[in-house]
Amino acid sequence: TFMDYDNNNIFAQILNGSLPAEKVYEDDNTLAFMDIMPQVDGHTLVIPKAPAVDLLTSSAGALQHTIVTTQRIARAVKQAFSAAGVMVMQLNGSAAGQTVFHLHFHVLPRHSGIDLRLHGREQAAPEVLAEHARRIRAVLT
Amino acid sequence: TFMDYDNNNIFAQILNGSLPAEKVYEDDNTLAFMDIMPQVDGHTLVIPKAPAVDLLTSSAGALQHTIVTTQRIARAVKQAFSAAGVMVMQLNGSAAGQTVFHLHFHVLPRHSGIDLRLHGREQAAPEVLAEHARRIRAVLT
Repeated sequence: TFMDYDNNNIFAQILNGSLPAEKVYEDDNTLAFMDIMPQVDGHTLVIPKAPAVDLLTSSAGALQHTIVTTQRIARAVKQAFSAAGVMVMQLNGSAAGQTVFHLHFHVLPRHSGIDLRLHGREQAAPEVLAEHARRIRAVLT
Repeated sequence: TFMDYDNNNIFAQILNGSLPAEKVYEDDNTLAFMDIMPQVDGHTLVIPKAPAVDLLTSSAGALQHTIVTTQRIARAVKQAFSAAGVMVMQLNGSAAGQTVFHLHFHVLPRHSGIDLRLHGREQAAPEVLAEHARRIRAVLT
């Protein structure tokens, strides 16, 4: 079952400026911003600007741009949150836990002994997300 | 803390032919093979041939090759295992659950209501892995 791209999904709205986001990085092909329901402090999302429902239906070029930005964000998040490790997760289809149908990579700082929170349960306070975004941007510049 | 690449890690040994693996795809820059401790049937790993401990220390070029092969494998695994979804996971550092220190992407078919098994606990029977690899190769050719 192939799902058509919905031009009104929330990441499309972030891309076209009709929804706000705590952005940490942007270039011609990709955007990175804070997940509003972080599974751990510093949880960042990386998306291609090109519309694509998921990894399976994306162009190879968009994937290549996105993975390079994901690397950039992984390095920055690791440093900004003094993380021992970094998890990158990318979900395709509701059965895999995908909830927004615009391709995205999750970047999660990992610390030994700190469990991940369940995703999509609790929205972080805007001022907390803003502070986390500032920390990441500070490393990137 | 930067970890040097260990030329004797098990994926390096698979790449140089000193350890066997159930391979499903190979090209000049990447290799895909069955995880011997699958978290779900069809659990496949995609690695660059270039030595790199993790995503953070990889070259951008190796990452770009690897994500395109990951897409190819995600599509094949979804079809071969009639999966509703596909999870892609990539772990950096022991704190994130990385156990082999050669960059790799996990590709996991996902079915609603089927939980993932814990990783690294139980080795699958060789004939089961061989049959799963055959299914994926059949889709790829």
